[in-house]
Amino acid sequence: MPPTESLTDLGVRDAADALRRRTITSVALVEACLARIRELDPKIQAWAHLDADGALAAARERDAESAAGRVRGPLHGVPVGIKDIIDVAGMPTTAGARAFAHTRPTRDATVVARLRAAGAVVVGKAHTTQFAYRDPAPTRNPWNHEHTPGGSSSGSAAAVAIRMVPAALGSQTVGSILRPAAYCGVVGLKGPHGLVPVDGIVPLGWSLDHIGPFARSVADTAVVLGVMAGREIVPTSASTPRLAVARQLFDRADAGLRQHLDAVVKQLAAAGAQVSEVALPREFGEIHAAGQVILESEAAAYHEAMFAKHGADYGPGFAAMKPIGLKRSAVEYVVANRARHAFRDAVIPLLEAHDALLSPTALGPAPAGLGWTGDASLCAPWSSAGVPSISIPTGLDATGLPLALQLIQAPSNLERLLGVAAWCEGVVAFRAKPGA
Amino acid sequence: MPPTESLTDLGVRDAADALRRRTITSVALVEACLARIRELDPKIQAWAHLDADGALAAARERDAESAAGRVRGPLHGVPVGIKDIIDVAGMPTTAGARAFAHTRPTRDATVVARLRAAGAVVVGKAHTTQFAYRDPAPTRNPWNHEHTPGGSSSGSAAAVAIRMVPAALGSQTVGSILRPAAYCGVVGLKGPHGLVPVDGIVPLGWSLDHIGPFARSVADTAVVLGVMAGREIVPTSASTPRLAVARQLFDRADAGLRQHLDAVVKQLAAAGAQVSEVALPREFGEIHAAGQVILESEAAAYHEAMFAKHGADYGPGFAAMKPIGLKRSAVEYVVANRARHAFRDAVIPLLEAHDALLSPTALGPAPAGLGWTGDASLCAPWSSAGVPSISIPTGLDATGLPLALQLIQAPSNLERLLGVAAWCEGVVAFRAKPGA
Repeated sequence: MPPTESLTDLGVRDAADALRRRTITSVALVEACLARIRELDPKIQAWAHLDADGALAAARERDAESAAGRVRGPLHGVPVGIKDIIDVAGMPTTAGARAFAHTRPTRDATVVARLRAAGAVVVGKAHTTQFAYRDPAPTRNPWNHEHTPGGSSSGSAAAVAIRMVPAALGSQTVGSILRPAAYCGVVGLKGPHGLVPVDGIVPLGWSLDHIGPFARSVADTAVVLGVMAGREIVPTSASTPRLAVARQLFDRADAGLRQHLDAVVKQLAAAGAQVSEVALPREFGEIHAAGQVILESEAAAYHEAMFAKHGADYGPGFAAMKPIGLKRSAVEYVVANRARHAFRDAVIPLLEAHDALLSPTALGPAPAGLGWTGDASLCAPWSSAGVPSISIPTGLDATGLPLALQLIQAPSNLERLLGVAAWCEGVVAFRAKPGA
Repeated sequence: MPPTESLTDLGVRDAADALRRRTITSVALVEACLARIRELDPKIQAWAHLDADGALAAARERDAESAAGRVRGPLHGVPVGIKDIIDVAGMPTTAGARAFAHTRPTRDATVVARLRAAGAVVVGKAHTTQFAYRDPAPTRNPWNHEHTPGGSSSGSAAAVAIRMVPAALGSQTVGSILRPAAYCGVVGLKGPHGLVPVDGIVPLGWSLDHIGPFARSVADTAVVLGVMAGREIVPTSASTPRLAVARQLFDRADAGLRQHLDAVVKQLAAAGAQVSEVALPREFGEIHAAGQVILESEAAAYHEAMFAKHGADYGPGFAAMKPIGLKRSAVEYVVANRARHAFRDAVIPLLEAHDALLSPTALGPAPAGLGWTGDASLCAPWSSAGVPSISIPTGLDATGLPLALQLIQAPSNLERLLGVAAWCEGVVAFRAKPGA
């Protein structure tokens, strides 16, 4: 049995392999994770709710199943964290909000039920910003505790980065998976809109909400997303991928990140990638405003009754959206939705003509301070378009904060996106991890 | 060469077969159609614009191609009519509105381009209610000129019924294909939402608009819809179909139609159909109001600028919708859209569990008078759900007006729907045609 530290270093597939070969037990792995959480969470605050007893009981059950030759699926015995907008039977769902919004579901969200059916052990609920919008979670960035981990899936990203769990679920309506993944130096993935069932999950904006995994490798996120989607997702192998670079996206990044990513792109080209510059369709100009109108309208529709009853209990970020969302007209919403679909229709052929479109995931490394979860504008277009995107860590800046690259593809090419991302990950070979 | 009358009696497939075998020419067929239009349209008023010269030129071209052994596709040489919200290059698009809304497109809508690529000859533009909403077209019902032909695809339905063309295109946002098909004693079909491209077509409500064909047999509508969709659509053969009857839909019909359709259902059962009673999901209760909110909002979004400039030029039906649509909130729209998707999600398993759901198409035969195009409430749920539906004529009432049955299926089962509809059509064997 390896020592505790290397147990928590295991990624999803390595852990699952070791569990299948029975060179480790689920109980040992879960205990190691729980020990690390107990040690580090007072500082990191990734967890809103832990279920140590439940997790250990599930781990014992998985080990007994393994001993009897029964392996549930690709996550058999692997501990995972769940963003606290997603129902886990028997645990509270707080959505990062005050008591008025808390529930204690008796049923798993379908996505959680699928994880368990594939053998996963749910350790607990990870902190989210309030209702997955802008009011921050208490979570700190594992690389520098004075910096935001990003949001809204703050706890999930931080927990995976600091090796409390090999994988965790998050959600992205604007930039809530890929941005915290970038800030925390892990891989964050979302599939095409609609790939993963969203029942049992507190919505932010239905037509924009994507549920996806955090893990520490592309292959690991692919395994978890496959379980979530209810079908195996096998990255296509890539060797000389055709990568598209849109200067207008790179130019949004701060100078340090831009310089870093230019070097990464050169490194990818040197390894055999064909890199071409592309221009985004003119409909790109409308997509940010359109996405915001859609989000505000859909969030207002979900929260309307709660606004009326509990308006004073919302954080300032959400409260600021309330009057805007409630006042939007149907015509504004419909026009925004038309703009969104026009962008989607215009950009998909561009995406399909390459193996991936490259973009910075964020404007720079995680901003200092815990009062703001950072700018999501480079993730937002791909949430609004409903197309798959993935963020991979590519290095550290001079202060030791992670930097990241975003790869984007068309909805029907998820496997191709993952293959290219894995290829880029291999070339870049990011190995750093945050100190405890 | 058969006499003129039997030429215009030919349906799409029979005409195409005869043209392929060169026992008739496209010029003769188009001339026969034009002669019938000249004779009858002063009374019927199905046509907003005729292009006799263009149609004859196209027919000559098709005949020359046939003589050279070139057949464009399944509609080679077949005359068709196009609802006047759909762009045909070189013809005006009036959308049944006043001059402010008229255009003279230089490009065909994709759906028209596909018809022509498959060999069809466009004869002209068929009358529509104003912007495909409630303000009536001048068209009269061929079975009784004092009755409405239904709307909004009034001209298309009437023209096919009175044998001016073997097929015509219409659109349905609420009940604008199937209802006029029922009132005029022809077959009206719409596929799942999104099957047919809608570029070059004046929208009413984007997320509800379906483009589909009128013809005089199920097989003929399948051929035309296949061309429109860009893929062959072959009805699945059916022998002992499992038919679902929802009493709550039959109970909406007037006594005469209910009695007639009860007899039709008995006739189908006697011919081998397994008929079972089903209850619609409770979400059905919300769908009518939801669809109306969606339509008003989307129509207002499209017309907003024109309302401001030409508000006084709209008919009273559309004008009545204007203030409602402009005042709808985004929250109302989003809630309606959620209700629509909830109904769709709930009803699709019910549809998939049978070969077709049966419903009256309309509440009764075509109402008397030309000021109102009739009630669309039995068609509306299936437009809002975006699922395929078809209306077939089943008989005449005591006054000689057509009665009709609607069949409904899930989006992925269009071919099955068509197979069952063709089977029912064969059992019912409706043969009547309106006198000239």
